[in-house]
Amino acid sequence: MSGDDIVTAAVLVIGDEILSGRTRDQNINYIAAHCTRVGIRLQEVRVVADDEDAIIEAVNALRARYTYLITTGGIGPTHDDITADAIAKALGVSIDHDPRAVELLSTYFAKRGVEPTPARMRMARIPCGAELITNAISVAPGFMIGNVVVLAGVPDVMQVMLDDVTARLRTGAKMLTATIQLSRAEGDVADLFAAHQQEFPDVAMGSYPSFAEGRVSTQLVLRSTDSALLERAREALLLALLARGLL
Amino acid sequence: MSGDDIVTAAVLVIGDEILSGRTRDQNINYIAAHCTRVGIRLQEVRVVADDEDAIIEAVNALRARYTYLITTGGIGPTHDDITADAIAKALGVSIDHDPRAVELLSTYFAKRGVEPTPARMRMARIPCGAELITNAISVAPGFMIGNVVVLAGVPDVMQVMLDDVTARLRTGAKMLTATIQLSRAEGDVADLFAAHQQEFPDVAMGSYPSFAEGRVSTQLVLRSTDSALLERAREALLLALLARGLL
Repeated sequence: MSGDDIVTAAVLVIGDEILSGRTRDQNINYIAAHCTRVGIRLQEVRVVADDEDAIIEAVNALRARYTYLITTGGIGPTHDDITADAIAKALGVSIDHDPRAVELLSTYFAKRGVEPTPARMRMARIPCGAELITNAISVAPGFMIGNVVVLAGVPDVMQVMLDDVTARLRTGAKMLTATIQLSRAEGDVADLFAAHQQEFPDVAMGSYPSFAEGRVSTQLVLRSTDSALLERAREALLLALLARGLL
Repeated sequence: MSGDDIVTAAVLVIGDEILSGRTRDQNINYIAAHCTRVGIRLQEVRVVADDEDAIIEAVNALRARYTYLITTGGIGPTHDDITADAIAKALGVSIDHDPRAVELLSTYFAKRGVEPTPARMRMARIPCGAELITNAISVAPGFMIGNVVVLAGVPDVMQVMLDDVTARLRTGAKMLTATIQLSRAEGDVADLFAAHQQEFPDVAMGSYPSFAEGRVSTQLVLRSTDSALLERAREALLLALLARGLL
């Protein structure tokens, strides 16, 4: 499904290891780029600890505000994996071993001669009413309940789950981007760029400086869902930069 | 200043470019590791767009809840840099060109033969009552007002500002970490590890799987501010793993 309406999302990263600095998150940027590509606007990200109250509060704040909430992390077999239980509590539904997930895991463990211990079978605990999300790597599924999408934290696994669930998500108008790269400091173009924003109020404009290899450069980024408008804004900006000798 | 009390922090990343996926955030992990090192517990991270309402709401939620709020991004010279104004609004203080910042920037621009345009001098706009934070790279300062620390988004600049401001921050007991690396899947140790958590309820324990180069491995991480307790928990866990043939 897709259309011209606006579909929004938030990401909730769950994990002490991100907040302690032990692990560098690799999922936020991946999900952000994916959302932009398919026509979903990521509007907020939060990172919280493996703490039930913190998870429930963030889940309830974010699922109420955006079309979708995508969570990562905390659905493994160990005692610090509390996401599924916290989501069930946040949504006020029960949670138990899901027969479909039990079947998937039992078959997988039997094939590999791995004992289906209670800890391993914890990964089959799914909130009541959820749809499963396929995990093509290590089988233990993610799930979607209401507008909440619950994915693994391990990046490879998160990515295959995100691919699986995307077909079920509503998507909206795609945000298009035009970028102009300048070998100039931001301050050189700031006045011109601000005037350009006033001329095209419906195009989102951002300026991003960088100082790579001792050289200053700036990227001017224009964003709109309207390709004709975006092209007009881009051309007008190029002309204005040329006229001022800045290009 | 340091002590045995608990000092907490949140990070607020401000920028459309992170949410669109255009830019991969490099500041969250750096600040997280820095906080852990100096004895500040990072408890929450949020990423919001260059949107005044979104910034104000997040600033007021986070500064009320944690000892410190550290923001990154949105303090450059272009029209999309709205952090300083949004912070002033959130805190209910006025904002204007700060004489100290004007002096710093004027001197810097004069030395380099750069014109002090209104856009460039926007970077001297500082909420009333703030202390400046030194920017040893490109001069335009960050600032601290109340418990809110406002840093640049460009990673190099953010890092020198963070170094400058850290000496002014209260710090607490340092969180110590012990890590045990296993060539095992999480499921193999989950029951033992859960029992170990029950035996040492005051030590935070997390399990982190990875699948690098086709091999499964798991890191068991123990965390506590009490080094003797942490060592006891680590030794007991090693013995338990040995006894079960898991090490």
